[in-house]
Amino acid sequence: MDDTRVDVCLQQINAALEWLLPVCDYDEPVVCDAMRYSVQGGGKRIRPLLVLESCRLCGGMPETAIEAACALEMIHSYSLVHDDLPCMDNDDLRRGKPSCHKQFGESYALLAGDALLTEAFYLISTAPFAKAEPEKALRVIALLSAAAGANGMIGGQVIDLASEGKQIPLARLQQMDAKKTGALIRAACQMGAVIAGAGDTQTAALCAYADCIGQAFQIVDDILDVTGDAAVLGKPIGSDAANEKSTYVSLLGLEGAKAQAKALTEDAIAHLAVFGNDAQFLQTLAGDLLKRTF
Amino acid sequence: MDDTRVDVCLQQINAALEWLLPVCDYDEPVVCDAMRYSVQGGGKRIRPLLVLESCRLCGGMPETAIEAACALEMIHSYSLVHDDLPCMDNDDLRRGKPSCHKQFGESYALLAGDALLTEAFYLISTAPFAKAEPEKALRVIALLSAAAGANGMIGGQVIDLASEGKQIPLARLQQMDAKKTGALIRAACQMGAVIAGAGDTQTAALCAYADCIGQAFQIVDDILDVTGDAAVLGKPIGSDAANEKSTYVSLLGLEGAKAQAKALTEDAIAHLAVFGNDAQFLQTLAGDLLKRTF
Repeated sequence: MDDTRVDVCLQQINAALEWLLPVCDYDEPVVCDAMRYSVQGGGKRIRPLLVLESCRLCGGMPETAIEAACALEMIHSYSLVHDDLPCMDNDDLRRGKPSCHKQFGESYALLAGDALLTEAFYLISTAPFAKAEPEKALRVIALLSAAAGANGMIGGQVIDLASEGKQIPLARLQQMDAKKTGALIRAACQMGAVIAGAGDTQTAALCAYADCIGQAFQIVDDILDVTGDAAVLGKPIGSDAANEKSTYVSLLGLEGAKAQAKALTEDAIAHLAVFGNDAQFLQTLAGDLLKRTF
Repeated sequence: MDDTRVDVCLQQINAALEWLLPVCDYDEPVVCDAMRYSVQGGGKRIRPLLVLESCRLCGGMPETAIEAACALEMIHSYSLVHDDLPCMDNDDLRRGKPSCHKQFGESYALLAGDALLTEAFYLISTAPFAKAEPEKALRVIALLSAAAGANGMIGGQVIDLASEGKQIPLARLQQMDAKKTGALIRAACQMGAVIAGAGDTQTAALCAYADCIGQAFQIVDDILDVTGDAAVLGKPIGSDAANEKSTYVSLLGLEGAKAQAKALTEDAIAHLAVFGNDAQFLQTLAGDLLKRTF
């Protein structure tokens, strides 16, 4: 990937998140602090990068999509905050730092997650592009809320909870991941396409790309839980095996999982053919996600 | 209040909520069940009634506002589900029934609250009125997300948590309630006004009305915690005194609190003068909220 280009995008996303997160208007800033702590925790920013680049690739100005990109990252962050809570995965560490509830307490972490989710929709509804093209903003809100909602990301968490302590077949694991992580990754590409005013062919190509990298992403997660370095990952490894969870590695074997992730990455890149040479950023992103170590 | 008219409105709201809540598209309906359980738990539906009636009073068709009204009730319901969780108020009962986490478990209650909040925005962004007038839908989403967000309802919950075990002065109590319950009540009237295309005078009158009944509502809550009937309320009484919480009753005395609630209700009704005789529904609603026993 053109590292300079990625770095510039990441700087824009991080600066915009800092600027766009709400400032507390009363004298107990703990939840606003917890929101910043969670969002600025050093994520890979894959989802906002996908929004901006999908927008550009479809002929839009990426700057137009910055609020939507940040809103999506806020929703991703909220899901991690709530997922780490004691009643969910009960994780003390997130990216090598204390998870939100370890840092701020459980009640404030719950509220910080709620606030990130709520403010994400405020951000889109008041964005400059929403004033200029309100229909597009409504479509973006509909896409994002559906992807994050009861039949999207939350549905994936329900299947995950309901599968605890059970061996599940591959089709079930794929259904879970398509909702749990796939839905927001697909929404990222769709949101960028909507804001750019993309046609059906471009949108379909981006959705197909997103579905492939979404699944590859989850397979690599499972592989890293076996072969990764805890220090680099910022969390302990081996937890899937310890919890006897069905994963792509347990179902396909380590080599089978690696081959599957590679094939999906190649498929993802092939789906970008409609964009010609202009899709290099997304091609390289797919390759980088396959090779990632954290 | 014209009981027939209220009954018809309530039936419309309850039917619409049933129809508009998401249907699970996979084989673990527990979170969709928990969402229905929480929304259909027999609330007073004050907020959606305010949306519909504010819309009508400003010259709009109340039917146009039904999705916005239901979205607001879903957000109110999510706040109760999360508020009842062990890390917050740890309440086992809500309206005389097991609270959501007692019925479905803590993880699913957390996710049901998240899903209610998320789906509320889906509902508005895809409502028929949003297709016809997208700018209005964006304003409604901005109003609702600001009222529910970090400086609105969630801010009130933060002040509440930070005040635990402390005596707080009246001004602080008022600030807390203006955010915790007042913000959504005000948003209800504003949302109805926006959908109707109301002018500044009508909107200002409805906001002033909402602020008065919002505060009166909280004072009556505090009074009922002293003088109420646990069986009618559906929850134990005396919890504020047991927790040594500052309330309108502890700060103003029982008679002082009653006088304050009555004065606010009269103020609320006076603010409706700009609507003439047409405001009878909201006038009677204010009076009924003052006399309520649950």
